[in-house]
Amino acid sequence: MRIDIVTLFPEVALAPLSDSIIQRARAAGLVEVTGHQLRDWSEDKHRRVDDTPCGGGQGMLLKPEPVFAAVEALRRPDTKVILMTPQGRPFKQAVARELAGAEHLLILCGHYEGMDHRIIEALVDEEISIGDYILTNGALAAAVVCDAVIRLLPGALGDERSPVDESFTDPNLLEAPAYTRPIDFRGMKVPDVLVSGNHGKISAWKQEQALARTRANRPDLLS
Amino acid sequence: MRIDIVTLFPEVALAPLSDSIIQRARAAGLVEVTGHQLRDWSEDKHRRVDDTPCGGGQGMLLKPEPVFAAVEALRRPDTKVILMTPQGRPFKQAVARELAGAEHLLILCGHYEGMDHRIIEALVDEEISIGDYILTNGALAAAVVCDAVIRLLPGALGDERSPVDESFTDPNLLEAPAYTRPIDFRGMKVPDVLVSGNHGKISAWKQEQALARTRANRPDLLS
Repeated sequence: MRIDIVTLFPEVALAPLSDSIIQRARAAGLVEVTGHQLRDWSEDKHRRVDDTPCGGGQGMLLKPEPVFAAVEALRRPDTKVILMTPQGRPFKQAVARELAGAEHLLILCGHYEGMDHRIIEALVDEEISIGDYILTNGALAAAVVCDAVIRLLPGALGDERSPVDESFTDPNLLEAPAYTRPIDFRGMKVPDVLVSGNHGKISAWKQEQALARTRANRPDLLS
Repeated sequence: MRIDIVTLFPEVALAPLSDSIIQRARAAGLVEVTGHQLRDWSEDKHRRVDDTPCGGGQGMLLKPEPVFAAVEALRRPDTKVILMTPQGRPFKQAVARELAGAEHLLILCGHYEGMDHRIIEALVDEEISIGDYILTNGALAAAVVCDAVIRLLPGALGDERSPVDESFTDPNLLEAPAYTRPIDFRGMKVPDVLVSGNHGKISAWKQEQALARTRANRPDLLS
């Protein structure tokens, strides 16, 4: 897989992808990730890429010219062009799985108040939002999408782990509380059932706890 | 405001907070952000901080001892202790606003398959999830929360901008499409109304477009 990220802040997008599991996946050649500075496609002598909105309103918008030039330089026939924006389709684990099947992702990052809408209409295959909150910078959202997608690539988690048995896989429940040693930590004990060795009881307890936790923290997942 | 982040990957949490608006807010003293290496609180000679789950299951869990030691070293009377976890309450703009009012946030980041549940029960004020997807690393989620919170601190966006008139503020609608110059880009034109100078019409058009976009991309926000 190849991922190109076009942003005003390539380091914000790339720095979080330089550690641990993701760095190993990149080093193993499972994915090639490149950050591109949008200003490199500006034809303005001051390398400007933004302008004020037509019809008024505060803030600045990314102009069409540099973004069209960037996409036209980087796009291939099999490219999926994604825009990170709070106006997009909510990013979920199912979307991560879908994107993990792509050959080439080209991720555009918003900044300022957004982008000229002609970019979205003419170039973007999918607008994605990582959540209902506002970030200073789409580059951080791009890093989140890359992290979630790259860990799903075959081999990324190594032989000893696989992306099953975790939240949002299947069924749609949060995970049960989990415990490790020591069995007694300052008088707080691991629930007896987990050290009983009775796998049937343990499994039933986990199921029941997962349901209770989902009901408490995320009733929306049950409806 | 002060933010302490405890993680196995302090650089993943801090690097995205070192550019642009957030870096300026830090430089101006609006917020002090520090990353802490959880292993510094391990008493194990190999600096281990994880162990296998009681009752079986794959992966590793963060052990109670180093996390308790970290929180006890960093916590103050006014501290809000947050855990980044996919099991948590969904992070929304309203949660960002709430956290922006805190004096001290202490953010714990999960890794591996999670944390011993005694940590959550005894130490954590709030479990927060940035979205329904799995990341390799809670440090990236912590960066997202920090970015969204810091930009809301008074003065962070500068005098010329303020966090109004944006998605998820009020009312609960996505933003209307926006356009900037050139008015005609390769035959694609800015909608006439936006260059009409008629502010009443512009405002009505934006309202109608915001509603249409919300209906198309996020019908859940309207129900």
